[in-house]
Amino acid sequence: MKLGVAYYPEHNKREQWNRDLEQIKEAGIERVRIAEFAWSRLEPNNGEFRWEWLDQFITLAEEYGLEVILCTPTACPPIWLVEEFPDVIPVDEEGRRNVFGARQHRCYNSPPYLHYSLRIVERMAIRYGSNANVVAWQLDNEFGGEQKRCYCDHCKAAFQNAMKAKYDTIDELNERWGNVFWSMEYQRFDQIATPKKYKADLWLKNNPSLEMEYSRFSSDAIVRYSREQIRLIRQHNVGESRPITTNRFPLNWGDNVHWPELVRDLDVAGIDLYSEHLHEIAFYADFNYSLKPGASWFMEYGPNVKNLREGMEQLRGRGCDWFTVFKFKPFPFGQEQGLQELVTLTGEPTDSYRVLQEWSSSYSGDSVSVTKVVPFVQSGVGLFFDFESSWVYTISVWGAQIHHRMHYPNYVIDTVYKSLYRENESHRIVWDADGVEGLHTLIVPLHIVHDRALEDAFLRFVDNGGALVVTSDLFQKNAENVFLDEIPRIYSELFGLSSFIVRPATEEPVLLRKSWGAGKVIVVNKDATPSEWESVVKELNI
Amino acid sequence: MKLGVAYYPEHNKREQWNRDLEQIKEAGIERVRIAEFAWSRLEPNNGEFRWEWLDQFITLAEEYGLEVILCTPTACPPIWLVEEFPDVIPVDEEGRRNVFGARQHRCYNSPPYLHYSLRIVERMAIRYGSNANVVAWQLDNEFGGEQKRCYCDHCKAAFQNAMKAKYDTIDELNERWGNVFWSMEYQRFDQIATPKKYKADLWLKNNPSLEMEYSRFSSDAIVRYSREQIRLIRQHNVGESRPITTNRFPLNWGDNVHWPELVRDLDVAGIDLYSEHLHEIAFYADFNYSLKPGASWFMEYGPNVKNLREGMEQLRGRGCDWFTVFKFKPFPFGQEQGLQELVTLTGEPTDSYRVLQEWSSSYSGDSVSVTKVVPFVQSGVGLFFDFESSWVYTISVWGAQIHHRMHYPNYVIDTVYKSLYRENESHRIVWDADGVEGLHTLIVPLHIVHDRALEDAFLRFVDNGGALVVTSDLFQKNAENVFLDEIPRIYSELFGLSSFIVRPATEEPVLLRKSWGAGKVIVVNKDATPSEWESVVKELNI
Amino acid sequence: MKLGVAYYPEHNKREQWNRDLEQIKEAGIERVRIAEFAWSRLEPNNGEFRWEWLDQFITLAEEYGLEVILCTPTACPPIWLVEEFPDVIPVDEEGRRNVFGARQHRCYNSPPYLHYSLRIVERMAIRYGSNANVVAWQLDNEFGGEQKRCYCDHCKAAFQNAMKAKYDTIDELNERWGNVFWSMEYQRFDQIATPKKYKADLWLKNNPSLEMEYSRFSSDAIVRYSREQIRLIRQHNVGESRPITTNRFPLNWGDNVHWPELVRDLDVAGIDLYSEHLHEIAFYADFNYSLKPGASWFMEYGPNVKNLREGMEQLRGRGCDWFTVFKFKPFPFGQEQGLQELVTLTGEPTDSYRVLQEWSSSYSGDSVSVTKVVPFVQSGVGLFFDFESSWVYTISVWGAQIHHRMHYPNYVIDTVYKSLYRENESHRIVWDADGVEGLHTLIVPLHIVHDRALEDAFLRFVDNGGALVVTSDLFQKNAENVFLDEIPRIYSELFGLSSFIVRPATEEPVLLRKSWGAGKVIVVNKDATPSEWESVVKELNI
Repeated sequence: MKLGVAYYPEHNKREQWNRDLEQIKEAGIERVRIAEFAWSRLEPNNGEFRWEWLDQFITLAEEYGLEVILCTPTACPPIWLVEEFPDVIPVDEEGRRNVFGARQHRCYNSPPYLHYSLRIVERMAIRYGSNANVVAWQLDNEFGGEQKRCYCDHCKAAFQNAMKAKYDTIDELNERWGNVFWSMEYQRFDQIATPKKYKADLWLKNNPSLEMEYSRFSSDAIVRYSREQIRLIRQHNVGESRPITTNRFPLNWGDNVHWPELVRDLDVAGIDLYSEHLHEIAFYADFNYSLKPGASWFMEYGPNVKNLREGMEQLRGRGCDWFTVFKFKPFPFGQEQGLQELVTLTGEPTDSYRVLQEWSSSYSGDSVSVTKVVPFVQSGVGLFFDFESSWVYTISVWGAQIHHRMHYPNYVIDTVYKSLYRENESHRIVWDADGVEGLHTLIVPLHIVHDRALEDAFLRFVDNGGALVVTSDLFQKNAENVFLDEIPRIYSELFGLSSFIVRPATEEPVLLRKSWGAGKVIVVNKDATPSEWESVVKELNI
Repeated sequence: MKLGVAYYPEHNKREQWNRDLEQIKEAGIERVRIAEFAWSRLEPNNGEFRWEWLDQFITLAEEYGLEVILCTPTACPPIWLVEEFPDVIPVDEEGRRNVFGARQHRCYNSPPYLHYSLRIVERMAIRYGSNANVVAWQLDNEFGGEQKRCYCDHCKAAFQNAMKAKYDTIDELNERWGNVFWSMEYQRFDQIATPKKYKADLWLKNNPSLEMEYSRFSSDAIVRYSREQIRLIRQHNVGESRPITTNRFPLNWGDNVHWPELVRDLDVAGIDLYSEHLHEIAFYADFNYSLKPGASWFMEYGPNVKNLREGMEQLRGRGCDWFTVFKFKPFPFGQEQGLQELVTLTGEPTDSYRVLQEWSSSYSGDSVSVTKVVPFVQSGVGLFFDFESSWVYTISVWGAQIHHRMHYPNYVIDTVYKSLYRENESHRIVWDADGVEGLHTLIVPLHIVHDRALEDAFLRFVDNGGALVVTSDLFQKNAENVFLDEIPRIYSELFGLSSFIVRPATEEPVLLRKSWGAGKVIVVNKDATPSEWESVVKELNI
Repeated sequence: MKLGVAYYPEHNKREQWNRDLEQIKEAGIERVRIAEFAWSRLEPNNGEFRWEWLDQFITLAEEYGLEVILCTPTACPPIWLVEEFPDVIPVDEEGRRNVFGARQHRCYNSPPYLHYSLRIVERMAIRYGSNANVVAWQLDNEFGGEQKRCYCDHCKAAFQNAMKAKYDTIDELNERWGNVFWSMEYQRFDQIATPKKYKADLWLKNNPSLEMEYSRFSSDAIVRYSREQIRLIRQHNVGESRPITTNRFPLNWGDNVHWPELVRDLDVAGIDLYSEHLHEIAFYADFNYSLKPGASWFMEYGPNVKNLREGMEQLRGRGCDWFTVFKFKPFPFGQEQGLQELVTLTGEPTDSYRVLQEWSSSYSGDSVSVTKVVPFVQSGVGLFFDFESSWVYTISVWGAQIHHRMHYPNYVIDTVYKSLYRENESHRIVWDADGVEGLHTLIVPLHIVHDRALEDAFLRFVDNGGALVVTSDLFQKNAENVFLDEIPRIYSELFGLSSFIVRPATEEPVLLRKSWGAGKVIVVNKDATPSEWESVVKELNI
C-alpha cells in the first residue's frame, strides 16, 4: 500500500509549492491528488480556460518525483455558470432552489450543467490525456454526497420519461405501485411529480413506491453522469492507461448512490473514509476491494485520528493499493478551515506526518513494498449488501432526516459486520448472485427486496454445501417496494414455512435452523442485537 | 356489541372477493365498511361515474349476509380534480401549497373542492339511498385528521367574513383581541391574515386571540362541510332510516375538531381508536357514548394489540353498539403497508381473527347478544371536556409541533380520567351546562375559558348537593383567549376568594375545600400529578 | 439606585390611569417608561398624528410627581405602513418575508421603514423635546432582539455596497475571504448574496467569511439606525439635557448587536435583564456600568423572581442609577399575557410590589439615597468581551439555531465570570485596548480574532506589571474569520512558542505560565471547565 496526499496548488502562492512538495516528498508520499475544486481557476469566465498554473504544477511535481492524480472539478460550478443558468442549482424537497456559496450545487439532470461541466472535463482530458506525470483520474468529488436528490423541473421531466420507459402504460404503473390506495392513481405519466416533502400536520408521507423509484432514478442520474465523464476521458487518453476512479462517500452519510452500478465502468474502486473504528475501516476496505479486486484505492482518509497507523494496517491487510490522505495542509479559509493535517497551518509536521514517514520508510526495504498490494487472508465468508433493500429501509422511516435514516448500513456495519470482524482476515462483500461463488458461508442481513435470480442462487449455494444466514425479513417485498402476497419458494422449499415470519415465536435470535442438501440455513431475527449476532457467528464456527 | 370490519373491494380482484367475504363471515362479523378512499375508482375522470363494481360488491356482500356501511370518498380527491383546480389542495402554515400523493389534501373552504366532493356525495346518495344492503353511512374519513388547518386565500377570505359577521366593527375586534398590544390594530377586516407561522430568530408567535378564532373557524369549516354531506344524504334516503356517522380522530392526535358540534347533527357518534391502554379505551368509549347515548360506534380499532379481547370488553361494558376493526387484510402497497391484520398478507387467520371469532360465537347463544348494547353501570360522576379550553392550552405552548401540544387532552385522559378509571363502571363526559343533570360529582379540569351559563350551572349544581371539583385555572380567560381582569362570581360566592389563584400557598394538591348549600367544592392545583389526583379521588369517596 | 416602572397608558381606560399612578407612586417609584409599542395609537393612519392622550398622560404623571421616560415606538410598524410597503417587513434566512402580527417586523435597511419610522421619531422629538416632565428618551425596544438579521433585497444591495466600500476590488475580497476554496470566487460585487440558509441533505453551510461580514453588516445597520434616531432627538431637544438610551437585549438571547458601537453615541447605557442568577446579574451590571460609567440604567427587570431584593442589591452595588421594572401590570391580552407583575391582573399588590416599596422607603432616610449611585468597590480585574470573537464562535457551530449558538457569551458569563464573581466587588468589562488602563489583572477568554493594536496593548500591560490570562485560542484568526498562517508576535515574544496550541500537551487547565517584564501571563485551555477556572482564579490570588 503506497501513499498519496490531496494538495491544492490553487490555494498557495507558487513560492510555497516548492516548500510543500519538498515536505510531501520527504514523508515518502508518491502521489498528489489535485484540482477537484478548481473550476473557477481553470475556467474563470465562460469558455476562457487557464491551464498554465496546472501545467506548471504538474511539471514541478514531476521534478519532485511525485505522480499526479488529476480530478475533474465538476462538483463546484463557478459563479458565471450559475448566474447565467440558475437551473444548474438543485431544488430541495421543499421546492426551494439552493443558493450559490458552498459545493455540490448542481443538478445531475440540468442540461446547462451537463453541457458546461462535460465541456471542461473534455478540455482537461484533451490537455492532460497524454501528460506523462498524470497517472490517474478522479471524477468529481463525492458524487451525490451532500446533495443527495434534486426536485427541479428537469428532474421531474426526466423522471416521468424514465417511468414511461420502464412501465410503458400508466395503468401498469398504477397497478404495480398500488395507486388505488388513497385514490393516488395517475391518468398520464406527466402527472407524476417528484416526491417533494409531503406537508401535513401529522405523519403523512409520499407513496413508498414513488420514493423507491425516485431513489433508483436519483442514483441512475449520477451513474449516467459518471459514465459520460469516463467516456470523454477515455476518448482522449493517449499512450499508457490512466486508470479512472472516483471518491465515494461512506455509507453512514448516505446510501443514495448504487455503488456496484457506479463502480462497474470505473477502472478503480475509490472511496473516502473518516473513521476511528477498526471494524468500520475494515468493512469499507473489504467492500472496496470486493468491488474491484486488485484496484482498491482510498482517495481520502482523515489523518487527525489517534489510531492512524492501526487504521492503515487494516487497509494494507485488506488489499488497498493506494492510500491517500486528505489533506496535506489545513485550509485557513472556507467551510472546512482548521488548524492541522499532516502539517499545521504554520507548516510544522504533526504526529500524523511522522506516522506516514515511518510507514513509508519501514516498508521501503523489504520485498513486499515493491508491490502495492500485499497478500492477505480471505475468510471464505461473504456478507451481502443490497442498496435497494437499504433504500426500502430508508423510505420506511417516517419523518427522519435523510442522514438519520441509515438503518440498513448501520445494522450491516455496526451490528453484523462488527460481529464478524477479525484483525487479520477479510470478508467478501457481495451484492449479486455472481458474488456467491467460492464462499463457504453467506450472511444476508435485511435483504427485504425479493429477487428471483438471487433466490435461485441461494438455493443452489445451500444445496452445494454452503451455510446461508438470512434475517427474518428476507424477500418480503418486490422491487416496487410493495409487500408480496405470496411467499417466495425459498420459504416453502428451504425453510419449510407457509407464511412470512411476522412475530417470531421465540425470543432467541435464531428463529430457524435447517440442514438442506449438503448445506444449511439459519434464519436470524431481523432485530437481533450486536451481542446476539456474536452468538450467531459463534454458532457458525467460522 | 356486534362486529364489523373495514374492507377495500377496489384493492382486490373480483375472484378474491368471495374468498375474503367467506373468511369475514366465518369470523362472525356482520358488517363491512367500504369505499372511503375509492374516489378515483368511482369517478376516474371528471363526471364519469363507475358504480358497477360497487353495486356488484354490495350485492355479493348481501349474498354472504353481510351488511354494508358505505363511506363517502371525499378525503382523497383524485388527480384530475387537483390538476384542474390546484386550489383544492391546502396551504400549510409556511404558506406552501401541498403536493398530490397522499390523503386529506383538501381545503374545506375551497369552492371547487366543495362543488366536486359534494357532487359525488350526492351521486352516491342517489344511487345507494335505497339499497337494502346499505345500512349506514360514514362521512369521509377522519375529518381534519392529518391536515388540521389550511392557510390558503379561500380560507383567508372566509375567515375575514366570519370575523366581520361576529364582531361587526373592526374597532370591536381590536378592542376584544387587545390589538393595542404591540400596535397590532387593524383598520379593516380585509387586513386580517390567517395565522401563518410567525418567522423570527427567537420565540415570537401570533396573537393568541387570532389563534383562538382561527381554531374555532377551522373547526367550524369542517362541521359545516359535514352538515352539507348529511343534508345531501338525507335528501336522497329512501325507505328505512340509514344512520349517518363519521369516524373521528382520537384527541391525542389533535383536538382541532369540536366533537359536540360535529356530532350534533349525526345519527351516530363514530370514532377511531388505536390504543392498548385500558383507561384510554374506556375514556373514549365513555365520551363517545355520552355524545350519543345508544348510538355509539367504533368505526376503526386496530386489531394488532396484545389485549384485543380486554379492550373489546371495555367497549362492550360502556355502551358500544358496533365494533369495527381496521382492517381485514394488510395493505401490501401504499403508505400504510404492513404484514398482518385479521389475516396475514398471504391470507392466514391471525390470533386477532380468532379473538373475534371466539367473541362472536361466545355471545351468540345468550339473550344478551340479541341486543347490540348490553346494560352497564354508570357511576354518576361526570368529567368535563371543553374543546375551547383545550385550544387555549394548545395555543399557549410556544413553538411546539401541533401534535406535541396536546397538554389538555393528555392531562384530562392520562392524569384525571386515569385516576377515576374502574373496569366495570362508566363515567359521563360533559361539555356543557345541560350535561350536569343527574350527576352527584362533577370534575372539571383545566376549564380556563369562562362561560357565564356554565358558571351558573356549577353554582346550582353545588347548591343542590353536588360535589364539584375544579382546577385552579378555572374561568381565568374569556372566549377571546384574553385574561379576565375581574374575577367571576364563582370565586367570590363559592370559593370566598377575591382574586385568581396564581401561586398556590400550599404544596398540597387540594388548594381549597368548601361546603356550600347542600354540596361542596374542591379546588385542585392545575399542575397536580396523577398520584395527587388519585388522592383527590380517594377523598371524594366515589 | 432609584426606581422606575414600565407602564402602558394606551392599554388602559383613562379612569384607570389615576388608580394605577397612585399605586405606582405609593411604591416609591419615581419614573414611568411609556409608549414604546404605541405607534398605532400615535399615528393610526399615515401622517395622522394623535398626541392628545400622550400629552394628557405625561401631564397626569407630573401631577403624581412621576417623571417620564419616553420611548420611540419604532419596533412595531402599524398595519397601514406594512400594507402600503410590504418591504418594511424582514425576510428570513429561508427567503420568506414575514407576516404582520407580532413585533420587530422591520428591516433596518428598508427605505420606507427608515422614512416613516424616522418621521414619527422626529415628530415625537418636536412635540416632547421641551416637555418638562419628559426626562429621558429610550430608543425603540430591544434593537435586533427577536429579528436578528434580514435577508431582503434592500439588505442585499446595501451589503454589496458595504463590501465594495470596504474591499474596493472583488479580487481583494476573493483573496481575503479565501474564495478560491470550492471555486466560490465572485467576478463582481453584485454577485454576492446574503447568507441565506444553505440547503443541503447534509451539513453544508455558507462561507464563514461571508457570515462574518454579514454579522458585522447586520449590527452596523442597527447602530446606524440608532444614530439617526439620536440625531433627530438631539436636534429638537430644548432646554435641559434629556439623556438618550436604549434597552439592549441580554447576550444569552443573542450577540448580534455590537454593544460598544451601539452605546458609544448614547448618553446612557440601558439594558434589559430577566435572570435569577446572581453572577449573571452581576455580569450584566458590570458590563453596563463599564460601557458608561455613571450612566448605567436597567430599563427592564422581571419582578417575578424569588430573589428580587437580592438581585437589586447586586445592581445597587455595581453602579446602577435607575432600576426599571417590566412591568407594573400584567397584560391580559396579546403574546405576553399573564397573571401578575407588581400587581395582579385584578389589581392587588404582589410580593414584588412590597419589595419595591420596602426598598424605596428603606433608602429614603439615609444620605446614600440622595444620590442615585452609591460608592462601590472595583476590583482592578478586567474581563474582556469581544463581539467579533463571539460571532466567530457563533458561525463555527454547524446547523444550530441562532439562539442555541451562544457558546462565547455562555462561556464568558457562566464559566469565566462565575469563577470571578464576588458579592461586593465589581469587575471591569473591557472590549478594546483603551479599557486595559488601570487594571492589575486582565482575563481574556476565547479572543480568537487577532487585533494588532490589542496585541501591543497586552504586551505593554504585562511589561508594566499586569497579570494577563488568555485562552489557548488567542488571536488564531483574522478579521475575515480566516485562520492566520503565521503566529502573531505575542506567541513568540511573550509565550515563547513557535506555533499555535492545537492539542494541549497537558490535561491541566493552565497550559503555560510565564513571567515577563514586570508582569506575567497565563495561558488557559480554551475548553477549561467552571471548576478549572475556579482553580485558575485561585492561583491568580485576586
